[in-house]
Amino acid sequence: MRLVQFQAPHLMGPHLGLESGNDGGVINLNAFDPTLPKTMMEFLEQGEATLSVARRALAAQLPVLPRSEVTFLAPVTRPDKVVCVGMNYVDHCKEQNVPVPKEPIIFSKFASSIVGPYDEVILPPLSQEVDWEVELAVIIGRKGKHIKATDAMAHVAGFTVAHDVSARDWQMRRNGKQWLLGKTFDTFCPLGPALVTKDSIADPHNLKICCRVNGEVVQSSNTNQMVFKTEELIAWVSQFVTLYPGDVILTGTPPGVGVFRKPPVFLKKGDEVQCEIEELGVIINKVV
Amino acid sequence: MRLVQFQAPHLMGPHLGLESGNDGGVINLNAFDPTLPKTMMEFLEQGEATLSVARRALAAQLPVLPRSEVTFLAPVTRPDKVVCVGMNYVDHCKEQNVPVPKEPIIFSKFASSIVGPYDEVILPPLSQEVDWEVELAVIIGRKGKHIKATDAMAHVAGFTVAHDVSARDWQMRRNGKQWLLGKTFDTFCPLGPALVTKDSIADPHNLKICCRVNGEVVQSSNTNQMVFKTEELIAWVSQFVTLYPGDVILTGTPPGVGVFRKPPVFLKKGDEVQCEIEELGVIINKVV
Repeated sequence: MRLVQFQAPHLMGPHLGLESGNDGGVINLNAFDPTLPKTMMEFLEQGEATLSVARRALAAQLPVLPRSEVTFLAPVTRPDKVVCVGMNYVDHCKEQNVPVPKEPIIFSKFASSIVGPYDEVILPPLSQEVDWEVELAVIIGRKGKHIKATDAMAHVAGFTVAHDVSARDWQMRRNGKQWLLGKTFDTFCPLGPALVTKDSIADPHNLKICCRVNGEVVQSSNTNQMVFKTEELIAWVSQFVTLYPGDVILTGTPPGVGVFRKPPVFLKKGDEVQCEIEELGVIINKVV
Repeated sequence: MRLVQFQAPHLMGPHLGLESGNDGGVINLNAFDPTLPKTMMEFLEQGEATLSVARRALAAQLPVLPRSEVTFLAPVTRPDKVVCVGMNYVDHCKEQNVPVPKEPIIFSKFASSIVGPYDEVILPPLSQEVDWEVELAVIIGRKGKHIKATDAMAHVAGFTVAHDVSARDWQMRRNGKQWLLGKTFDTFCPLGPALVTKDSIADPHNLKICCRVNGEVVQSSNTNQMVFKTEELIAWVSQFVTLYPGDVILTGTPPGVGVFRKPPVFLKKGDEVQCEIEELGVIINKVV
């Protein structure tokens, strides 16, 4: 299933929906069952009960809102955590001439940086070095602490595409080298288009992943290049913190980012960035 | 006013209350006006409307629940952000032999690390170097971006006491020197006892601040030693991110932390840490 949060002119506020296939229209889940919550956070917190309603909706012959009539929101908004993983692609480590990490390197974005799959990324006047990073994002479905890698997939609701927009000047040279500020400007975390439930993906660790800037392919790899896979990341992070439904884990980016080009290339006003992952879809964000 | 979140055996779930003076009993605001929200986040989002109800409750002669009959929760739970400031006391910089920063150094904790004012701090088996840090915490009352320092206090709801528990091994030597993991273990952010509204504090930047471990004073300073004051911190952070009602800003710690002692001293099971700030109160957390 492809779960989405969306708005439409005839509906009050955000709603929960099902995208009918990658790039298809949207089935209004709240119209199918008015007792369903209207946010993904609450939907996930209710676990299997709400998921089974969504499955029934998918099986029913329901009206589909044309894609042109809806606004897609990020599939999760205001989660407790946006956990990010640094240097988690073997080929991205080679690009930087750094050794492959022996344990995951964890940083974060504030939830306030999340925007929808087709929203604009705002270039902050404070930064001259805003860069792209396509990433596979894991969305947690069930609360847990000290989760074993072998149990980790039971805590995953599904996957989505993330753009880990990064201001390299702030990440690498300012703020006492703490990456947070460079990673967490407002609009620096486009997500979507859908939370693709884990049962709908053959293998999350064997998906083509790419980023295009103004149509030119700048990153192209496969999630099989990930150093620490979803299960290991969940086991690692949950040693430190309780994971909650809705928590998002950005699993790192493949090579091809702008800062390591010679000469470096950064985003400018008017650029269009497309982040795409096989089976999950594409998010398209204009830089303004 | 001293706003609190609390639970009591005869009440279902968390409630909003007023602490009747530092260390006094609790007035149940939800009993006074059942239309009031039951969480501080929602209370703050409603702004002046809910604050005026609380003021009326304070003026009325209402029953006071004895302190022994209530459980104090953190005054804010699950905010969008817990923003932290590093090296923000002149005397703490001297202790480390580092220059006073020219701009604030910002890092973060996940909201999942927040616990109540008298809750236990759990020593994680992963760390051997868990340290104390008393801090003044600012709680945001009104949404804003690009807030000017001169307007900043209009965005503040009030202040509370925070304990920025810190695993020095993870903060300083692991995780690619990103501080996040060492700062964000579950239970590493005790807050409370109350959100003291700004109108109830003569001057937040002239308050005695101290930390005691097992009764011995280990930190003792004054918030007048802060490098960047509340107004400057809000102006700085809101250049990067939108601040929301309920967001918490931990403003840094004075000297006397365990890691800079010779030899270093760290917390162990059974220790009791008291963090106290003049006019705000004391939080007491046992280490287990």
